[in-house]
Amino acid sequence: KPSRRSHHTDASPTAAGVFAPLDTFARRHLGSQPAEIQAMLKQVGVNTVEELVAKTIPSAIRSPKPLALKEGFSERELLHRLQAIASKNKVYRSYLGMGYTDTVVPNVILRNVLENPAWYTQYTPYQPEISQGRLESLLNFQTMVCDLTGMSIANASLLDEGTAAAEAMLMCFSAAKRDRSTFIVDVSCHPQTIACVQCRAEGFNINVVVGDVRSFDFEAHRKDLCGILIQYPGTDGAVVDYKALTSKIHGYGGQVVVATDLLALTMLKPPGEFGADIALGNSQRFGVPLGYGGPHAAFFAVKDEHKRRMPGRLVGVSKDAAGKTAFRLSLQTREQHIRREKATSNICTAQALLANVAAMYGVYHGPEGVRAIAQRVHNLTAILAAGIRQLGHTIKNDHFFDTLSVNVSGGSSRDVLDKALNLGINLRPIDASTVGVTLDETVTKEDLKDLLKVFATGGAQPADLDALAASLKGSPAFPSSLARTSEYMTHEVFNSHHSETKILRYIHHLQSKDLSLVHSMIPLGSCTMKLNATTEMIPITWPEFANLHPFAPIDQAEGYTIMLNELESDIAEITGFDDVSLQPNSGAQGEYAGLRVIRSYHESRGNGHRNVCLIPISAHGTNPASAAMAGMEVVIVKCDAQGNLDMADLKNKAQKHADKLAAIMITYPSTFGVFESGVAEACEVVHQHGGQVYMDGANLNAQIGLTKPAEIGADVCHLNLHKTFCIPHGGGGPGMGPIAVKSHLGHFLPGHPVIKTGGDQAIHPISAAPWGSAAILPISWAYIKMMGGRGLQEATEQALLNANYMASRLASHYKILYTNDNGMCAHEFIVDVRPFGATAGIEAIDIAKRLQDYGFHSPTMSWPVANTLMIEPTESESKAELDRFCDAMIAIRQEIFEVQEGKVPKGNNVLTNAPHPLSQLMSDEWNRPYPREKAAYPVDYLKEKKFWPSVGRVDDAFGDRHLICTCPSPEEYIQ
Amino acid sequence: KPSRRSHHTDASPTAAGVFAPLDTFARRHLGSQPAEIQAMLKQVGVNTVEELVAKTIPSAIRSPKPLALKEGFSERELLHRLQAIASKNKVYRSYLGMGYTDTVVPNVILRNVLENPAWYTQYTPYQPEISQGRLESLLNFQTMVCDLTGMSIANASLLDEGTAAAEAMLMCFSAAKRDRSTFIVDVSCHPQTIACVQCRAEGFNINVVVGDVRSFDFEAHRKDLCGILIQYPGTDGAVVDYKALTSKIHGYGGQVVVATDLLALTMLKPPGEFGADIALGNSQRFGVPLGYGGPHAAFFAVKDEHKRRMPGRLVGVSKDAAGKTAFRLSLQTREQHIRREKATSNICTAQALLANVAAMYGVYHGPEGVRAIAQRVHNLTAILAAGIRQLGHTIKNDHFFDTLSVNVSGGSSRDVLDKALNLGINLRPIDASTVGVTLDETVTKEDLKDLLKVFATGGAQPADLDALAASLKGSPAFPSSLARTSEYMTHEVFNSHHSETKILRYIHHLQSKDLSLVHSMIPLGSCTMKLNATTEMIPITWPEFANLHPFAPIDQAEGYTIMLNELESDIAEITGFDDVSLQPNSGAQGEYAGLRVIRSYHESRGNGHRNVCLIPISAHGTNPASAAMAGMEVVIVKCDAQGNLDMADLKNKAQKHADKLAAIMITYPSTFGVFESGVAEACEVVHQHGGQVYMDGANLNAQIGLTKPAEIGADVCHLNLHKTFCIPHGGGGPGMGPIAVKSHLGHFLPGHPVIKTGGDQAIHPISAAPWGSAAILPISWAYIKMMGGRGLQEATEQALLNANYMASRLASHYKILYTNDNGMCAHEFIVDVRPFGATAGIEAIDIAKRLQDYGFHSPTMSWPVANTLMIEPTESESKAELDRFCDAMIAIRQEIFEVQEGKVPKGNNVLTNAPHPLSQLMSDEWNRPYPREKAAYPVDYLKEKKFWPSVGRVDDAFGDRHLICTCPSPEEYIQ
Ligand SMILES: Cc1ncc(COP(=O)(O)O)c(C=O)c1O
Ligand SMILES: Cc1ncc(COP(=O)(O)O)c(C=O)c1O
Ligand SMILES: O=C([O-])O
Repeated sequence: KPSRRSHHTDASPTAAGVFAPLDTFARRHLGSQPAEIQAMLKQVGVNTVEELVAKTIPSAIRSPKPLALKEGFSERELLHRLQAIASKNKVYRSYLGMGYTDTVVPNVILRNVLENPAWYTQYTPYQPEISQGRLESLLNFQTMVCDLTGMSIANASLLDEGTAAAEAMLMCFSAAKRDRSTFIVDVSCHPQTIACVQCRAEGFNINVVVGDVRSFDFEAHRKDLCGILIQYPGTDGAVVDYKALTSKIHGYGGQVVVATDLLALTMLKPPGEFGADIALGNSQRFGVPLGYGGPHAAFFAVKDEHKRRMPGRLVGVSKDAAGKTAFRLSLQTREQHIRREKATSNICTAQALLANVAAMYGVYHGPEGVRAIAQRVHNLTAILAAGIRQLGHTIKNDHFFDTLSVNVSGGSSRDVLDKALNLGINLRPIDASTVGVTLDETVTKEDLKDLLKVFATGGAQPADLDALAASLKGSPAFPSSLARTSEYMTHEVFNSHHSETKILRYIHHLQSKDLSLVHSMIPLGSCTMKLNATTEMIPITWPEFANLHPFAPIDQAEGYTIMLNELESDIAEITGFDDVSLQPNSGAQGEYAGLRVIRSYHESRGNGHRNVCLIPISAHGTNPASAAMAGMEVVIVKCDAQGNLDMADLKNKAQKHADKLAAIMITYPSTFGVFESGVAEACEVVHQHGGQVYMDGANLNAQIGLTKPAEIGADVCHLNLHKTFCIPHGGGGPGMGPIAVKSHLGHFLPGHPVIKTGGDQAIHPISAAPWGSAAILPISWAYIKMMGGRGLQEATEQALLNANYMASRLASHYKILYTNDNGMCAHEFIVDVRPFGATAGIEAIDIAKRLQDYGFHSPTMSWPVANTLMIEPTESESKAELDRFCDAMIAIRQEIFEVQEGKVPKGNNVLTNAPHPLSQLMSDEWNRPYPREKAAYPVDYLKEKKFWPSVGRVDDAFGDRHLICTCPSPEEYIQ
Repeated sequence: KPSRRSHHTDASPTAAGVFAPLDTFARRHLGSQPAEIQAMLKQVGVNTVEELVAKTIPSAIRSPKPLALKEGFSERELLHRLQAIASKNKVYRSYLGMGYTDTVVPNVILRNVLENPAWYTQYTPYQPEISQGRLESLLNFQTMVCDLTGMSIANASLLDEGTAAAEAMLMCFSAAKRDRSTFIVDVSCHPQTIACVQCRAEGFNINVVVGDVRSFDFEAHRKDLCGILIQYPGTDGAVVDYKALTSKIHGYGGQVVVATDLLALTMLKPPGEFGADIALGNSQRFGVPLGYGGPHAAFFAVKDEHKRRMPGRLVGVSKDAAGKTAFRLSLQTREQHIRREKATSNICTAQALLANVAAMYGVYHGPEGVRAIAQRVHNLTAILAAGIRQLGHTIKNDHFFDTLSVNVSGGSSRDVLDKALNLGINLRPIDASTVGVTLDETVTKEDLKDLLKVFATGGAQPADLDALAASLKGSPAFPSSLARTSEYMTHEVFNSHHSETKILRYIHHLQSKDLSLVHSMIPLGSCTMKLNATTEMIPITWPEFANLHPFAPIDQAEGYTIMLNELESDIAEITGFDDVSLQPNSGAQGEYAGLRVIRSYHESRGNGHRNVCLIPISAHGTNPASAAMAGMEVVIVKCDAQGNLDMADLKNKAQKHADKLAAIMITYPSTFGVFESGVAEACEVVHQHGGQVYMDGANLNAQIGLTKPAEIGADVCHLNLHKTFCIPHGGGGPGMGPIAVKSHLGHFLPGHPVIKTGGDQAIHPISAAPWGSAAILPISWAYIKMMGGRGLQEATEQALLNANYMASRLASHYKILYTNDNGMCAHEFIVDVRPFGATAGIEAIDIAKRLQDYGFHSPTMSWPVANTLMIEPTESESKAELDRFCDAMIAIRQEIFEVQEGKVPKGNNVLTNAPHPLSQLMSDEWNRPYPREKAAYPVDYLKEKKFWPSVGRVDDAFGDRHLICTCPSPEEYIQ
């Protein structure tokens, strides 16, 4: 049966496939047409795709049979099918709270940010000159978080509130003296937050004590306390003044971490004003759909003194080569690819896109707008409280913002919950006699009526809402000492864009500064910046997926359950594993989850002492960081000159640590872009010495359909769904990093305290939500279903061909660093530019920046090898685009020759001065040793189509020295 | 009760409105905040908005009471409500055909063109330097149409197939000798096409004869025949070879018009190859949703010799000042604003956005792709035909492409139709024993099974589909003489963008060249380029609105019916009229409809001789053109020096033509932007002389809530929903031009031959679909419902204030041409730049082009007064944006001074050389008498944000002389 890619030749009604739909997907996902493929094969020097694969992947690990996945659905079929599945989700009105509340997503932001490929296909803004738009928006996010929390400095998002709390605990722990390893968590924290903290504590042997801070015996911990975590307002809704407690904890030498709520902080005294060291939470209710748990941006803010130890990415203000204000990622030296196992956090992919949505929500509403929303939510809660009391129940928390814990009078909470369910309402079950109700900005008068109906037990009659409202005092339902008096969001950006026309133009203006996949290829090695197809993206904002609360009763989530189960089983087939957890919401979280599972496995067999993790020197920085976080001791394995694992060293170390060997972490194909032939042997060696094999699946795009992690010998691997499986990168997240495991590890897959998931001996949850960022899983589901087994394999083959084609074209101009014995790279390859330093004063960064002048995003710079460029084209790019990029690289090589030959000076040439923004090129004075046109239009097609950097080269050192991470004043701005 | 705009101050729970939602719309639609409004009032010299209104609008015509429309819905409420309404539409599988078939809309085009404000908020590309993207796309459309029809030249869309056929008839008529006034229409044309042709014929006294061209006695018409219209394939599905007929008609001196189907033409010999003079049709099935009848782009193509008489806009290839290839609108001199009552067509707003969608569909699929789709549709039709025959029925048309006329054996067609309805299927009822079935690209094997089930009457068993397929010969089901042999869509653009990544980048690349409302204000007088809000736009692509066939049984369209009824009654309230027709799909069509209604009214009273239409000299060109088309004699009424109607002249002419007076057409406020005080008197004068008053409602944005056409004295008016009521302009359409009338005219509102609508003495249909472009009506519905009565009035007030504010700021720099006695303009005003010609060699066009360098779209140029600029800000623009524009105009005035003072030469300055595209500014040589920075960044904010023209000033004369209206070859292209 012919692949659907070639349907165009089926012409007669008698042909096979006459009924097949024509809106097939694989041919749209794959960049090149058959004739182009032939030309590429020829350039590579092979006759067929099969020959290419045979020369690229060791035959020993080739899969014996093709993927057992069905022929792909057409785009239309896919959406019909998914709509049918989605319609099985029941979207009830949710008052469950616990850190997730419904929100009115401004449609202008929905359409123009969340549903706009020019925003969602952006990469993390490591190249600031072509990323000023999202950097500005993330700076808005940071500013808004600082303002609302009253803290000094905030990062550009973390994965979720639970992991943010875990990160905060680690900051307390690492800042404290060694023997201070007790961390106290208040009972009024959200249960999933407590569980995430407990999970993370294990790797560090932190003693997490859950207790009621209002009555806790801190004295007992005055010597070993490193910090406390409180929730403000509490998960039960209580609003408590923590000023005295904070002083006390500080007195004991501990730090105070406050999990909080941005909306509440528009009315409540912010944590920064009562002395908190760290404030964190979920920004979801600022315009981000519930999404059955994610993706949402967690926020994280600290006191100034802690800023250099804060996890996550941080946008800062610096200047460009011409002194113009420019934004950039600050303090990158803290990140794992530098600090490796000494990193205190493994966070890499975060939630940039959702932070941008939340920031735009803040920009659109402004301080008065968010305050009005908070005030309305609070007013309605007060009215509801009065109504509930009038019905004879007790509100346990006298002081509240939006959440009530209701003690049900003369009846069980189950009755109330059931009555609610009958009206399509979810209340929070707390205990046998208590239910929780959390209001949000979507609540209407009708909703309140229904709620009072639910609480009208035993024949009681609810009061009239208008009468209830009229009966209330004007003052808020929390101590006046906690009323917020300080200003926030005073910056102009939050006070300018309140009409739809204005916010639309602001969104588009920022977007116009940012290069994304809508412009050109983003050939980032190890990042797999492939097509994020519209049909994959459409479902994620369908209400049936977008509007479900993660803790809704599971029988309301039948559609999700079907989709998640199918995705799990497809992942199992693709990887060769038996069980899958969809919980980790980034690759790094997947690593951490996998290693925790391995540890539990060892413990379950009485091998709790096995804690050595072998990690090749070539590994991604998250690997050692995750291992350290999982409580493992990292032992480095060398690589040989060809970039392969040094097998002798591996055997040596495996043997040496045999007693304590827990695992090896390998990336396959290697981070150097090569299918190492020794991989199966390496797995054997580790297994022989009692270790487990963890595979980092970041490079899975080179494997699918041709080999499988399980067949290679791994026991567990994570998949970056935001690489291989089409979740767009979103400018630095969201992502998903599910793990797949062999059955012996399946027992330990992560669980969840609220919604049952995971293995029968589940480890603590890795993420706050049971299935991580569930709302974006339809993207990967759709990709797999539309590609089908054959399409997925074709994609892999095409990815390999594209990389080898580019390597082959570039090989006569640059040194290609690593290939296998047949001269083949995998799906990516490294270009060595180190020699140019000495001969021309040109570093990798100069080439990266010069590529911007050619309208391109740089390949991955200086990773995994310093001063090199790693190129990954992916299968979605066409030969034409690959050629355009190769031509640019070759033209740049000529420009380097000119420096080498002394035709233009070192240090003052098109490379070292790159990129050239318009503001520089347009200036009346021009005293560069090269013409403007050469700077601007080094190749002809740029005159027709060019993406322009919006600032000149950004000064990193200056920014790190003068750390400013909130919006600069307009005066500072315009230069 | 306070307006929802000011909700921010309601803080306490006891406040009124505590339950009101906060996502209110009016404050998002209106550009300025209260403080800005105060500042503007001050500049204008009034204290309050009411004072402004009082000084602007004659008190005599002020509405006695506010609009009786409810308080506006919040955005969320609105979408909930509309979703509930939409869900009442039943989307059945449609096999109704008749020029509307379902289509697989490529999602990448849906999201990135149809749902993208950067495309849908564009204006008609009259400023080519900032419109090269859509001009290229429209050129693709024209090229595709030429290729597929085999004709020489095609326009950039007409309103629908029915009116396109009417336009074709007029071309035949006007090309022929006076006495040739018979136009023969084949019975196998779509019924709505026939009806539209009949409608249009009336005004010209063309004798339309409907007959069967296969047996027609042409000999009888050899002297008076001007042309014939045939449908190919026929509405009954028949595919007939019309070569001989075409020769015969040419022999009689007539022209041959072929209504046809682009998809069929990929397989059938195109009209151009059998001698057709004109080919036209609906391009809807190229990726445009059914939309209950529209909007869709009609195509229209002619032989080379007819090109200068072709109606509609035409994109052509020219060059810019530097000789670079550039696109533009060609042959604009044909348009009504030049030819007025001598124009052969009144078409103005057309269907640009939908033409772009269809063109992108062609680009994405390419020639092989569209051919494969056609082949599949044809194959499935052949299989279905075999299956139906096997069930004992007769296919009346042996030769077919996608449509079968089935003679139901031994049963009535009603039985089959009912059986189909039970399965959720619509078949076409043809007569008592015949049903029609038209297939399309969405049809699946399941669908065919269901269809055979429907036809399995009297216990017959349908054959197996695979067996049916296998039993067929490979050859198509039409004469081999009609098989297409010629190539089409050979241009590179149709053979390059077949992966999603590529089409996405192509779409975005074109978009990046086009200024739209996402960038800056578009202050086009008479065009009302206001916000097109996302919440208004979202519903139009909901399947419940998008996927309904216009001729679906009315009981399946309950949702549409509710929405249309509500919109009609809101329009009635807003205008003060009694009855509304939503059929006309542009303003010009509204004029034509209104005048036809007036004529029918006169006829009904035995006054058929009343045919004089008074039209002020200041009227828009469509007015006289429409009047002429409605069979009226145009008599011009003068204006005085203040731009007001010359009342003496009016009385004079009304009296002089009293016997024959049919109507006056007035625009209010006048096209000069003034509320004339004599308007009520003018209406009286006309009424006294037996005439009716037609009001052109293009300027309704200045009236709503403050006055009403009916109160002023009009009998009928049209509304441009694409101006006042937020339908986005789409780069030149879609639009809607409903008419509202007093009850005495209601009887005559246009009807429809297929679906009942209109008055009890309905005139023939004005549009092919019963409610015109029904799918975009939710936009206007939503706008009205969200603004509410109060919000609509506020919008009008704000529009008046904004215009007067700008006029006031500019008055010390430019002469403002017309104001009322209080010095007030209406919602727009004219800036006189005529004096600069003599003193500086500067014309309006130079200022218009120079504004591009400031990042702005020009105001309306040289209309209604030559060499002036007419500015309309709308209520959605903020004071900040108005100031930015005024600052630009003031800066330009300085630049003019510099020429006047001789500081820079006439004819070689920033104005005459404007605009300055990057390619010019970046050139190494610079020998202009002014610096680059002055050309590029005349004001500072442009360094931060500037929209760049992509070519230099386009040479209009060259383009008209060397008319090329298809894609140029790549060699011609890159310069
Ligand atoms: C090899 C490798 N491992 C792990 C990661 C971390 O994945 P994530 O960013 O999803 O946390 C990356 C990300 O680039 C990677 O390339
Ligand atoms: C005063 C006036 N009348 C009529 C029209 C024609 O409307 P449409 O373009 O919708 O046919 C216009 C359009 O600009 C106009 O300004
Ligand atoms: O969507 C834009 O690329 O402007």
